[in-house]
Amino acid sequence: MNDTIAEGWTEQARPPALFRRFAFERYAQTRAFLERVAAVQDELGLAPQNISFGTTYVNVTIAASGEGGLGEAERELARRIAAAADACA
Amino acid sequence: MNDTIAEGWTEQARPPALFRRFAFERYAQTRAFLERVAAVQDELGLAPQNISFGTTYVNVTIAASGEGGLGEAERELARRIAAAADACA
Repeated sequence: MNDTIAEGWTEQARPPALFRRFAFERYAQTRAFLERVAAVQDELGLAPQNISFGTTYVNVTIAASGEGGLGEAERELARRIAAAADACA
Repeated sequence: MNDTIAEGWTEQARPPALFRRFAFERYAQTRAFLERVAAVQDELGLAPQNISFGTTYVNVTIAASGEGGLGEAERELARRIAAAADACA
């Protein structure tokens, strides 16, 4: 069994959430990433609980969407967001 | 003399910053607002220090861009952002 629900993300227990900070060199990359994250949200029908950003960083918090805690839906959202960051780096 | 640098915003002294929370009924409004804020940033050449958002809220922090503290540039950014929120409500 793999205890890591989403590689590269920090898992918080109470309340269940995934957190990750993405850093970029330029604001254009940050904005491109935010646009990709919005597209991912639309596609999956699931949004991060909070996105906090400045010109060259984006902090993403994904909370559990159901009572069962973090599951496959959150893991997929995290994976897709990380892929979006790779595409903008 | 008017001590209010930006009506509707909370002014913080150390470090100098303006803060305001914008709430929306729907995610579509939130996203439209974020897009307008990005356009305002581009136009003014000045960005909020931090924008933190969920599906129906956006918290905006504007820090002083120069050593002189909050000035006309920050006031204009705050005013334009507030106008963008009104346009999306």
